[in-house]
Formats: sequence, C-alpha cells, structure tokens
Amino acid sequence: MSSFYAVILAGGSGTRFWPMSRASLPKQLLPLLGPETMIRRTVTRLLPQFPPERVFVICGRPYRDLIQRDLDMLPPQNVIDEPQGRDTAAAVGLAAVTLQWKDPGATFAMLPADHHIAPAERFHHALRAAYEAAQTNALVTFGIRPTRPATGYGYLERGERDGSLFRVKRFCEKPDETRARAFVAGGRHYWNSGMFVWRADAILAEIRRSLPGHHEELLAIQAALGTSRLPDILAERYARIPKISIDYGVMEKAQRVVMVEADFEWDDVGSWIAVADHREKDADGNAVDALSVPIDTRDSFVVSSDDRHLIATLGLEGVVVVHTRDATLVCPKERAEDLKKLIEAIRAKGLEKYL
Amino acid sequence: MSSFYAVILAGGSGTRFWPMSRASLPKQLLPLLGPETMIRRTVTRLLPQFPPERVFVICGRPYRDLIQRDLDMLPPQNVIDEPQGRDTAAAVGLAAVTLQWKDPGATFAMLPADHHIAPAERFHHALRAAYEAAQTNALVTFGIRPTRPATGYGYLERGERDGSLFRVKRFCEKPDETRARAFVAGGRHYWNSGMFVWRADAILAEIRRSLPGHHEELLAIQAALGTSRLPDILAERYARIPKISIDYGVMEKAQRVVMVEADFEWDDVGSWIAVADHREKDADGNAVDALSVPIDTRDSFVVSSDDRHLIATLGLEGVVVVHTRDATLVCPKERAEDLKKLIEAIRAKGLEKYL
Repeated sequence: MSSFYAVILAGGSGTRFWPMSRASLPKQLLPLLGPETMIRRTVTRLLPQFPPERVFVICGRPYRDLIQRDLDMLPPQNVIDEPQGRDTAAAVGLAAVTLQWKDPGATFAMLPADHHIAPAERFHHALRAAYEAAQTNALVTFGIRPTRPATGYGYLERGERDGSLFRVKRFCEKPDETRARAFVAGGRHYWNSGMFVWRADAILAEIRRSLPGHHEELLAIQAALGTSRLPDILAERYARIPKISIDYGVMEKAQRVVMVEADFEWDDVGSWIAVADHREKDADGNAVDALSVPIDTRDSFVVSSDDRHLIATLGLEGVVVVHTRDATLVCPKERAEDLKKLIEAIRAKGLEKYL
Repeated sequence: MSSFYAVILAGGSGTRFWPMSRASLPKQLLPLLGPETMIRRTVTRLLPQFPPERVFVICGRPYRDLIQRDLDMLPPQNVIDEPQGRDTAAAVGLAAVTLQWKDPGATFAMLPADHHIAPAERFHHALRAAYEAAQTNALVTFGIRPTRPATGYGYLERGERDGSLFRVKRFCEKPDETRARAFVAGGRHYWNSGMFVWRADAILAEIRRSLPGHHEELLAIQAALGTSRLPDILAERYARIPKISIDYGVMEKAQRVVMVEADFEWDDVGSWIAVADHREKDADGNAVDALSVPIDTRDSFVVSSDDRHLIATLGLEGVVVVHTRDATLVCPKERAEDLKKLIEAIRAKGLEKYL
C-alpha cells in the first residue's frame, strides 16, 4: 500500500463546544477526549498505518499555523490551507489533484479531524479492506452499525454484496425520530461516518461527471502545482468553486459506491454530551476534567481549560459546566446538544469577541 | 446626642459566601448588595446620624488595613483591631472601656457590619428611641417583626410596656420549624437583630455582674489606654478572656433589657439566597450581577467578581452560579444556604488555599 495516503479534513468551526471552542480555536484543536487535541489523536491513530509523509491535512488558512505546530510529527508542507472554505467537494478535489500530481497511482482516505474511533486496530483493518476495494475504482464508504436511533447522522442503506463489501443502495439524510427507529429496526441502514477511501483518479472522474465546474477549476489548480504561480491561481480558481458537499454533490449520484461494514466504535463527538460519554466517570456518574469538588452531584460533566480554577458543585444532577478563562457555560445535559440559540444571543448582545 | 457613638462589629469569617468570601476577604468586605462593600454600606447608613469621629469599627487584626482603606470616610484610628477574636462579649467590653475612657457619658450602638437595613430614616428613628431609653441605663435591643418562621434567627419575647418601648421577657435561641411557626402566629416574638444600644457604663456594670473575669481584664486594658503599654497589655489581657457571646454571657441574665419595635426591613443576609432576594430581578426572576447571557433561565442567580467574564446559562431554573477569578460554585438555590459540607470537602481535599 505504498500509494495509500490519508487526508484529514479539518474544516469545523465549532460553536458546539463553546465556550471552549472559539472562532480562533475550533473543535479539532481542543483536547476534548484526552491530553491530545482531536486532530492530533486522529493523526496518532493513523501513524501505525501511514508514514508521516503520506498524511496530509486540509484546513482553513487561519488555522494552518496552529495545526502545523500541533502536528509536529508531520512535514509542515503536508498541512495544506484552503484560501477560503468551499465545502467538502472542493476540499476533496483539492486533495485529489494534489495527490494525483504527486503520485498518479494515489489512493487516499478522506477522514474528518475530530471524530472518536476505537480500537485503532479494527479501524486499520477496515482501511485496508477499503484500500483493496478502491483499486477496482469503487468509491468506498464506512457504514457504522447504529447503536441507537440517532437523528443527528446521515445513514447509508446497504445494497447487495460487492466482493467482500456491500454496495450502497442509497444515501439517507438525517432522519426524524420515527424513521431513525425504523432504520435501526430494519438492520439495513448504517450511520454514514463521513470517511471515504478512493483512488484520486476515480474520485476526480466522478467530480468531472457530477460537478464539471469544480473539475475545470481543479484542473487549472493542478496545472499550477509546483510552480510559483500556485498561490495566485489557487486563490483565483478556488474562489470560483461553488459550495457543495461531497455527499450531496458527488456521492449520491456516483456509479459504484461500496461500503465497508465497520466493526469499530465511532461517533462524531458532536456535543459536550458526547464528550462526557467518552470520559471516565466517577462512582456518581460524573465526568470531570477540572480541579473539581463535586458534592451530592450526579451524572454531571465539569470541564475547565484552567487546571488551577476550582469548580465546586453542590446538589446538581445532569448538569454541564464548562469553564474557560473568559467565559463559563452552565446548562442541563439535555440542552448541551444545541447551543445555537445561545450563540445567537451572544452575537445579538454584541459579545462576538467571546465567540 | 453628642455622646452617642456607633460601634460596628466586623467579626464574620464568611464561608457562607464562598467562593467570593475567603479567609482573607470576609463577607463584610464584599459588595454583595450593590457597588459598596457591606461594611461601607453600614457606615454610609450611619453617617447622616453620626459624625465620622463617632463611628468605630472593631475587627480582626488581619482585616484592619483592608477595612481602613475601604472606610476612608472614617479616621483610621477609629478602626480598632482585636489581637484575636474572643467572641462578642469581649468585643463589646473592649468598645465599652475604650469609649468610656474617651467620654465618660458615652452611649453606643453596637451594630453588625453586614446586615441589610432599609429605609435608613426609620432605622435612625429607632436608634434615637433606643438612645433615649439607654439614658435610663436600660440595655436596648431591636426586635424585628418576623415576616416568616425563620429558623436561622434568635427571637426576643416581648414583655410588658416600659415607657415607649417594651421589656424583653426572654431571649429565645434559634427555634425549630414548629416553634418558629408558633412564634410568628403568637405575635409576641421578634427576631433578635443583634443590634444593641446602651450606655458604656451600663453594659460594663452588667459585664461585671455576669462575667467578672471579663471585667477584670477589661479594666486592665482600660488602664493602659493612651499609654505606650497598650499593645502589650491588650495582647496579654485580651487573650485571657474566655470566648462567650454577649447574648449568652450577658443579655440573657441582664436586669433591664428593653426592645425597640423596629419598623424597618432587616435581615442578616446570611446566604447567597438572601443576596439574590435583595437584588433586582429581570422579567424571568433572575438576579444577575455579571456579564451574563441567560437563555431559557428562570429564578436563578448569577454573580461574578470579574465583570469581563461571560457567564452563559441555558435552560436553568433556580440555580446559583458564583464565579471568581480562581473558583466557581454551581448549586441549586435550596443548597446555597448551607455550604458547610462543601467547605469541609474542599478542606479535606487539601485545597484550603481556595478558602
């Protein structure tokens, strides 16, 4: 697998982890599940399988320096910054033309920066299976067997067998509760983990077919790779690419999409609740990542970015407390999954500097 | 009333307002009810009636400098520090011998530093009535008509009329709920506000009768006033005085105790709940003294000592959040009245530096 690459898509903004995530410090740069940042955990998980030279990151320009510093095990030039965010179809295309130019036979895994995956060995096993399938020019997804009727994920409907994998019959948008229950009961639906493996030329062929405008700009960018014209061409051409996701713009219409049935734990760690779920709990079910004194407190989550700040809780149940140097959030767990209303109110009060 | 003095007893330690109150910053030095500290509010309330030279403070040695700085309207020498805390009978005695030495005809009001009293005019009126009664050598208390069956206050039982006031028939310790209800229903019981007015010679005569040991040490201290021996004598003699309260040690056995029926609002502001009760509320019943964004939050209390720290609450009801630079407390309102268990746990964890 000497032409197998990993490309990490580090695009998130991360108001869902306010006040710890900020415009200047998105989710992937937070140490939500341990001492390492989410993106560094993702790279660490890949390194047994990929040499550092074959691990790439695509990120927003404002985060490039922070990410280069955080991922000091990677060659700095492997952190590629987009002139501006143009959604995932553009980012996938940029990765594809770059890798194809470096290595015409490149196959790559496209991986989010900030998900939970364990154990790593099973993930590596699934990546190998996906790599093999990708050599037949299939576009490979990873279907996660749902453990609950989640309404926050898209689903893949499994079709007939395709070699050792399955065809994907259909991409399903985030369902409502009823439909999600039916999906789980039916046994043919899987969570769409947003991870893909494909040959660079195979995904570029599909982009050409479904998004020819994208393809034209991407070819112009590819022609400038390795030349001094790249920054100008990239800025000019990338800006012209319409914003559309790879799922909606390409995958849902693609010719041959297959699915590896993943047998590893996965979730997208979409909220403080998910973070709490992955943390070790004390005897009262509290997850604590702070200097904390929880008294008569149960099923709560306390976290601080300042390990000398003492957080004392007395008589709480199911409460989330997130403390940072300049802002604190307190809410019941059931409200911690949707901070949008709060974020809007902070903006409306003219307090954007806290976002 | 040229021989009428006010003596403010600033003895509290103040774990009840943790994390805002600390060993080094007790309740009376916190701005709990407005921009001024509690003790400064107390002095401000007195100044229309007493010239600054006739307002004294008795405080623990560690707080003298802070209090002198806070009470910059008073002559600094009017802030008298005890070598160590010996409870209220000793402090009253120290005030009495000091004022009697300055002014043999002195009458003084003994007032806690950190209570809520309003409106000031009615309080002044009551002080004048108490002053008049004190000229007949009565020991004067202030009875507050109870508005609820409080179990956190001592009560005074009203006896027969004595001039324009009432005799105090009995001092009642903090009652249980049943007894408190009976007190309120009966109409003869009043909250003991812990404020007193007496002539210095009258209270000293009662101390001599009930606590002769106290009296002996106090006379020795009085003999040293105005001399260079004072610091040594005070340190030596004050340390010998047993700890006992003025209520228990003197008032309950005193000859002639009368009561002004107070017609002002009073409470001892004993917890964060009491503080919240005195604060202005928003339309949802929240009291907020912080840079705060309360969303779907009701009946809650949010306070910070850092006015640039943003506290966001989402979906809370009846919760108290107290934030300081190095510690935060979160608890339901009903638990905010008793932080003892929490304070003990902090101590047990070796985190005394946060107390």
